[in-house]
Amino acid sequence: MSLRFAVLGAGRIGQVHARAIASVPGAELVAIAEPFAAAAEAARKAFGCEIRTIDAILGSADIDAVVICTPTDTHADLIEKFARAGKAVFCEKPVDLSVPRVRQALATVEAEGATLMVGFNRRFDPDFMAVKAAIDAGKIGDVEMVTITSRDPGAPPAAYIKVSGGIFRDMTIHDFDMARWLLGEEPVSVMAQGSVLTDPEIGELGDYDSVNVILRTASGKQCIITNSRRATYGYDQRIEVLGSKGMVAAQNTREAKIELANGDGFTQPPLLNFFMTRYTAAYANEIAAFVAAVKDGAPTPTTGLDGLKALELAEAAVHSAAEGIAVSVG
Amino acid sequence: MSLRFAVLGAGRIGQVHARAIASVPGAELVAIAEPFAAAAEAARKAFGCEIRTIDAILGSADIDAVVICTPTDTHADLIEKFARAGKAVFCEKPVDLSVPRVRQALATVEAEGATLMVGFNRRFDPDFMAVKAAIDAGKIGDVEMVTITSRDPGAPPAAYIKVSGGIFRDMTIHDFDMARWLLGEEPVSVMAQGSVLTDPEIGELGDYDSVNVILRTASGKQCIITNSRRATYGYDQRIEVLGSKGMVAAQNTREAKIELANGDGFTQPPLLNFFMTRYTAAYANEIAAFVAAVKDGAPTPTTGLDGLKALELAEAAVHSAAEGIAVSVG
Amino acid sequence: MSLRFAVLGAGRIGQVHARAIASVPGAELVAIAEPFAAAAEAARKAFGCEIRTIDAILGSADIDAVVICTPTDTHADLIEKFARAGKAVFCEKPVDLSVPRVRQALATVEAEGATLMVGFNRRFDPDFMAVKAAIDAGKIGDVEMVTITSRDPGAPPAAYIKVSGGIFRDMTIHDFDMARWLLGEEPVSVMAQGSVLTDPEIGELGDYDSVNVILRTASGKQCIITNSRRATYGYDQRIEVLGSKGMVAAQNTREAKIELANGDGFTQPPLLNFFMTRYTAAYANEIAAFVAAVKDGAPTPTTGLDGLKALELAEAAVHSAAEGIAVSVG
Amino acid sequence: MSLRFAVLGAGRIGQVHARAIASVPGAELVAIAEPFAAAAEAARKAFGCEIRTIDAILGSADIDAVVICTPTDTHADLIEKFARAGKAVFCEKPVDLSVPRVRQALATVEAEGATLMVGFNRRFDPDFMAVKAAIDAGKIGDVEMVTITSRDPGAPPAAYIKVSGGIFRDMTIHDFDMARWLLGEEPVSVMAQGSVLTDPEIGELGDYDSVNVILRTASGKQCIITNSRRATYGYDQRIEVLGSKGMVAAQNTREAKIELANGDGFTQPPLLNFFMTRYTAAYANEIAAFVAAVKDGAPTPTTGLDGLKALELAEAAVHSAAEGIAVSVG
Repeated sequence: MSLRFAVLGAGRIGQVHARAIASVPGAELVAIAEPFAAAAEAARKAFGCEIRTIDAILGSADIDAVVICTPTDTHADLIEKFARAGKAVFCEKPVDLSVPRVRQALATVEAEGATLMVGFNRRFDPDFMAVKAAIDAGKIGDVEMVTITSRDPGAPPAAYIKVSGGIFRDMTIHDFDMARWLLGEEPVSVMAQGSVLTDPEIGELGDYDSVNVILRTASGKQCIITNSRRATYGYDQRIEVLGSKGMVAAQNTREAKIELANGDGFTQPPLLNFFMTRYTAAYANEIAAFVAAVKDGAPTPTTGLDGLKALELAEAAVHSAAEGIAVSVG
Repeated sequence: MSLRFAVLGAGRIGQVHARAIASVPGAELVAIAEPFAAAAEAARKAFGCEIRTIDAILGSADIDAVVICTPTDTHADLIEKFARAGKAVFCEKPVDLSVPRVRQALATVEAEGATLMVGFNRRFDPDFMAVKAAIDAGKIGDVEMVTITSRDPGAPPAAYIKVSGGIFRDMTIHDFDMARWLLGEEPVSVMAQGSVLTDPEIGELGDYDSVNVILRTASGKQCIITNSRRATYGYDQRIEVLGSKGMVAAQNTREAKIELANGDGFTQPPLLNFFMTRYTAAYANEIAAFVAAVKDGAPTPTTGLDGLKALELAEAAVHSAAEGIAVSVG
Repeated sequence: MSLRFAVLGAGRIGQVHARAIASVPGAELVAIAEPFAAAAEAARKAFGCEIRTIDAILGSADIDAVVICTPTDTHADLIEKFARAGKAVFCEKPVDLSVPRVRQALATVEAEGATLMVGFNRRFDPDFMAVKAAIDAGKIGDVEMVTITSRDPGAPPAAYIKVSGGIFRDMTIHDFDMARWLLGEEPVSVMAQGSVLTDPEIGELGDYDSVNVILRTASGKQCIITNSRRATYGYDQRIEVLGSKGMVAAQNTREAKIELANGDGFTQPPLLNFFMTRYTAAYANEIAAFVAAVKDGAPTPTTGLDGLKALELAEAAVHSAAEGIAVSVG
Repeated sequence: MSLRFAVLGAGRIGQVHARAIASVPGAELVAIAEPFAAAAEAARKAFGCEIRTIDAILGSADIDAVVICTPTDTHADLIEKFARAGKAVFCEKPVDLSVPRVRQALATVEAEGATLMVGFNRRFDPDFMAVKAAIDAGKIGDVEMVTITSRDPGAPPAAYIKVSGGIFRDMTIHDFDMARWLLGEEPVSVMAQGSVLTDPEIGELGDYDSVNVILRTASGKQCIITNSRRATYGYDQRIEVLGSKGMVAAQNTREAKIELANGDGFTQPPLLNFFMTRYTAAYANEIAAFVAAVKDGAPTPTTGLDGLKALELAEAAVHSAAEGIAVSVG
């Protein structure tokens, strides 16, 4: 029998997950909750599902699981409510911008014996999964040094940046999760450096647009993360892992695999420019993994704890960049 | 309103098209015809459609279009029957192995004013479409020389080869269609050379497994096609077009976009090994184009004539390889 | 002791060989023969060698070997003279445009027990040598299908084309030699097709600028060669060999190994545009191999026979393209 | 007239420079100084030059310039002596491991009005020069973020590590110079992290084998450097520069530009494994630039100050890694 879903929030990421649910065998999209009437109607048409309020969904016997895609400041409350209501919960990152609030929500989830998966879509990208599989198969020996290059095509609007918690909590958080996943060991030290290079307004909002981070684990494994809010050539998403026996790296995804040659040289198209097209397969795989775990009563591949750990690294990076010191975590 | 489909034949290629129909908005799979009970039942389960006989489908008011995926020797008859029944027809290549029989079937289609699209899936591959778009946008000037490399991972079984019409009609036919599409001008001369290098049994069946072809148009544009029934590194599908101002080429599709480096060098995974995974997007785009054309009453992007022209080039290649002469066509 | 050289002809290719001699340990450039005073003086300055007449060189006791870089119609005579004079002879391809004249010259060389190496520089390119080494090491199993893509940046002047013997004897001849080297078996059948696409003047001179060739050996191995006199993106020199166990290919050489990315995509520089820079290492390796063979009294890696065989394939291609038939050779 | 050179020290790097001098027009190798008789004799044979003592060279009227390739702890003394003797001086990095000693030597050079070029060979690598040229031509707009990946195939012997000054002064120093060159602005802050991952003995010697560094300039430009003493796939030397309008990167150099494909995938050869073969062209270009500057009385492209600046960054990195703080420089 299919796992019956409601998606809370029909914004950009809500639509991504609705589409993913539609594409995954064994998952069924029953309802969407969306306060804006026009957006709700559009979603209803696009996905052929019902529109219900969040409260109605809480009480719906025909809903097994929810995907929380509402604004960040509602995540923790909704996680707690739906955990108590006995629904399996998939929540977009972050759980909350405050570490104590995250801990509280996770405690509730644990007390209820509920299922909570936090969305770190990149772990489900086919190429990144192939990198991880190569590591796990011993192809590069012991992991030593990870390099993550992660650049957005452009900065989000100022209104978004204001409530985002800053670049480390909003953007680098994905890379922190990738670092933990690839290092296979928790980072204990964070060094970070931040600059404003692409738009002074970002600085006026107290944020950075260009950051670099060095993570170090107890055994000395290291990871560097380089982020920019601007890459004219598309959405740059690369990982590279050096080990004792070799290196493995994932390449970027282009708009098309063609090459044009003339007197100016050999040109390949820019990278896919948008996280939704870049990570279409990843989002589908992510929901499929959630469905499988819930059906099997197995642990989800990412949990609330992963959300917490990544947030702690982000907080450490904020402090490190501000104060010019290595910050200990864990 | 959706275009309502029946798929005739639930073999490998029938399943490909059933899946494509399921993935295309505005298309609905109503029924499948399949003589083998087990295959029929599997298809019913997989696609949630009905099982009907071909005759029942001919008389079904709730079927707008059929996709013919039955054995080659039934194609022409079915095209004629369904054209007369007023259904839009999509037929897998080839229409028939005999040029006169193809002409007869096309004449019937024309007399009935029916719609017939012949399946040349490669024209709908996103990378090949990007190559064509670059040509059409004038990026390489006038097309001069086309190179098509097309190699199968392995030969089909002897039983298939026996009824296939030979490598030129079965395998190279796709490349002949690509050549016509990329040259933008009909070939008038065909030179071909064939060998048996991978398996003597293929030779005993009177076929080749390794062929090269040179096509030439009236204005002197040329195309070379190189085919082998064996490529240990996967399903090799490349096109390259040289023009007066530049060159454009499409690259192969790998299993994953990763690279592993060690003392042996830098290794990227083999190519996707199977036409169904390699051309998943192409098959979906192809059906979508058929749906759009039927709905708009517009010409389909490929027609029975394309099937005929490719078959004529295949026949010419058979003669050229056998007799060691350039064969004129058109 | 060093092998003491004279270079006959201080044109472009003569300078290439003079520079190669200067760079090879164990080789010494003693003299250059050059009828044009200005060119002779320039060579003397550039290479610090003497200027002598060809007759003087014939009689020079301090010259062990000559490199013939004079116009093609003088090659055969000079080969014979210097073979008789007991000098080791390196001659630029072709020995002559007439097959009977080549045979005659080779007979003289053989009668004199002289050493004659014919310049097929591509066999000495480090990347092509690595391809050959991979084949010889069994990395791809039995060779089955060879693809040679060879395109010049631009056509030579009409005056040159007039005396060149046509594109097959002048340009494709290098590819015929590569084909023989890579196939490891003599071609027995030649099919060729020629067009005039880049410049009508070439057609008025009775030549082609765009040709494709299919070669076939007795055991069925095949090779396709694609040539154009115009490639806007540089001097395109690629080889690819498919075998029973795999494929090996050599990539082109760019001006620099960099990539520039922006909204237009990812651009790498054009190919090296000139045969002298593209094959600098090959020319040096070639002379070094000649020097080593002469010193050791060993056979040279390429011989007059290689020059003859390549010329025979060129003649066959001329006939095939003109008459539209497969032409037998050997 | 040629610039007449003496090379001090005929070890590995001394031979590199002797060979470079031999290959550069306008440069002449007159003498080598080398205390070990066997090494001296080998050099004399290989380069056809004289053997003289350092003192003799100091007094030699037929020597215009020296290349200092002796052990590091002799560099500063020799620079001062030869500057006073009126010879143009090229010195391998580093000038000294002590910043005050470097300053003292540079003061002497300045007081004497002497010429001192410090060897940072990478600035003269053709690919890196092409990257710099693209930046200088405005191809990527304003430089924002630099990524330098620099990994040795294997660690040097313990005896060398002991006197090397540690990985930051010995290995990263090249990357610090590249960072300064590519950023176009002096770093003011250094964050570094070090680990011992490849060989515990390196840790016992008080050094690291795996380090990451973040540099930041006053205007906020950043550079990350990642170093390892072990890369099984060869000598990994990559640079990537992100700017406001695009990105430019230099690729690694492989043993050959070929690709082998089979069921295991597509494999390209490992990287050139040795700094001498990897940077052959760079060393020749470097000496040529020195020769040109001395002949023209122009400033050398790198100076003693560049050596000092790189060393200061290395010292800052040592402190940052040890103390877990960002260290200010300049």
